[in-house]
Amino acid sequence: MATLFITRKDVGRLLDMPAAIKAVERAFREWDGGRAQMPPKSYLSLDKGDFRAMPAALPGVVGMKWVNVHPGNPARGLPTVMAVLVYNDPATGYPLAVMDATEITATRTGATAAVASRYLARTDSHTLGLIGAGRQSYTQLTAHAALFKLEQVRVYDRSGGAVKKLIDSFPRLPLVEAPLEAAAASDIVCTVTPVRKPLVKKEWILPGTHINAIGADAAGKEELEPSILNQAAVVVDNLEQASAAGEINVPLKKGLYKSSQVYATLAEIVSGRKPGRRDSRAVTVFDSTGVAIEDVALARLVYEKACREGGCLSLDFIEG
Amino acid sequence: MATLFITRKDVGRLLDMPAAIKAVERAFREWDGGRAQMPPKSYLSLDKGDFRAMPAALPGVVGMKWVNVHPGNPARGLPTVMAVLVYNDPATGYPLAVMDATEITATRTGATAAVASRYLARTDSHTLGLIGAGRQSYTQLTAHAALFKLEQVRVYDRSGGAVKKLIDSFPRLPLVEAPLEAAAASDIVCTVTPVRKPLVKKEWILPGTHINAIGADAAGKEELEPSILNQAAVVVDNLEQASAAGEINVPLKKGLYKSSQVYATLAEIVSGRKPGRRDSRAVTVFDSTGVAIEDVALARLVYEKACREGGCLSLDFIEG
Repeated sequence: MATLFITRKDVGRLLDMPAAIKAVERAFREWDGGRAQMPPKSYLSLDKGDFRAMPAALPGVVGMKWVNVHPGNPARGLPTVMAVLVYNDPATGYPLAVMDATEITATRTGATAAVASRYLARTDSHTLGLIGAGRQSYTQLTAHAALFKLEQVRVYDRSGGAVKKLIDSFPRLPLVEAPLEAAAASDIVCTVTPVRKPLVKKEWILPGTHINAIGADAAGKEELEPSILNQAAVVVDNLEQASAAGEINVPLKKGLYKSSQVYATLAEIVSGRKPGRRDSRAVTVFDSTGVAIEDVALARLVYEKACREGGCLSLDFIEG
Repeated sequence: MATLFITRKDVGRLLDMPAAIKAVERAFREWDGGRAQMPPKSYLSLDKGDFRAMPAALPGVVGMKWVNVHPGNPARGLPTVMAVLVYNDPATGYPLAVMDATEITATRTGATAAVASRYLARTDSHTLGLIGAGRQSYTQLTAHAALFKLEQVRVYDRSGGAVKKLIDSFPRLPLVEAPLEAAAASDIVCTVTPVRKPLVKKEWILPGTHINAIGADAAGKEELEPSILNQAAVVVDNLEQASAAGEINVPLKKGLYKSSQVYATLAEIVSGRKPGRRDSRAVTVFDSTGVAIEDVALARLVYEKACREGGCLSLDFIEG
């Protein structure tokens, strides 16, 4: 036996977005069917950032992502979020692969939002609003472009440079720089900012909009005016995580929103136990906090493709 | 920047027991001083075995061990326990190294028991009893041989083959095969078996003995007659873990032992907040369940030596 070492470059070569979307959708269905295992994340907080251990198992698959969040990293030329994933044989525990999960983390976040949009957005959605043009917006864009016929993608960021960089990166997609209000007035809106005060006002949101609220990933963070949540069908990936650190965390703490108002989990929607969008004028919100089955689902894709295509480093790692 | 990949063979080359013992002792002292962080282990149980994510931070060091326990593995030619450790820069989260931790796990368990023996066994201890001659007994032996002048090491295992193999592996140490009772009648006794019913009887234990109870690592496991605990000074690595899965777990559940009877944690002993052995006739027991700071302490040793000595594979793992 041997262990594959799959670098970020390799992962980028092996992952493709349409397959990632399918893999994430399947993982949520397996989770809903009781065929996934996902203990709570284990957190470790240090001065300059924090770390999370995220283990999960799906049928035939088990792995653990170890991911950091260090907000000061960009100033040092490093990504804020980096991750390593250990991928094991469930039958023996043998570490089949150690892979970079920096790319996997970004891709699965986009893929999961696109799965939410598939069930919650209007099927005739053709405008996408990206609020925030940082790293996470790239995979929101590619994931939605894989599922929807996008006629216009409106990009807002307080940094014009970030907007330009994003637009220049996708010359074949219909991206335009837009004011915040215009980006918010799209069929599908993805909020991918690190703000701690609501940025998106309720008055800008049109009937029938689906919002993927991605940015809030820690206690105290929120991107949407709480009144948006109050009149929307809110879907969460994990109610406990969302309540502690997702878009709903601040409104819950302030008493502006109740967790009993949450409509469903994404797993319930994907498995068909609860219907997705039924009303073309409803506003829907997916509160994404990120769950480990998403990572393990993509790790399975990467590993299987690496085995088929070769080209990755293989090492006697555990052997004496 | 780059990430080091340190195989089991490399780890074996870079680790030495005297340094490991010092590193573990230092880690327990740092822990007692509030300078360590160690969130609870995250468990994942599957059909054939289980997995644990064990993150920890010490001053200047952070890492996470992902370890499996698959009891059916030896029949398939694989170790029961295998482990991978990701070692990060606390300041940026950058993964400085990914290392095999199979060797680290075995070594740190031996090193920690030897630290316990240093404070709890009689300083004139010169006989060691090894009850169980499997994989874990090897590092109990090397760790104690590094700290004590051993005149006789009495080895018991229900498999004579395992005893012979252990004895043959250390031609320069005074090992002899012994009956269970004789092994138990040693100055220092290490129990390293997977039994679920007490194996060691109180009547065999001499006054002044120190016992390292290593084998019990899951609910329902015990190696010592509970009456031994009742009359001994019991020291734990972590009270919560020991109560759930260590030597004291079964006696606690049966009401034969109370957690208020536990004398101290190893961290309290090592830091000097509670005295170690004072009475040459007392029986002391260290209930070892294994804590993540031990692994991270050894990972620091391995990483620093790997950087100094070279010879390990270095890869652009995270870089785009």
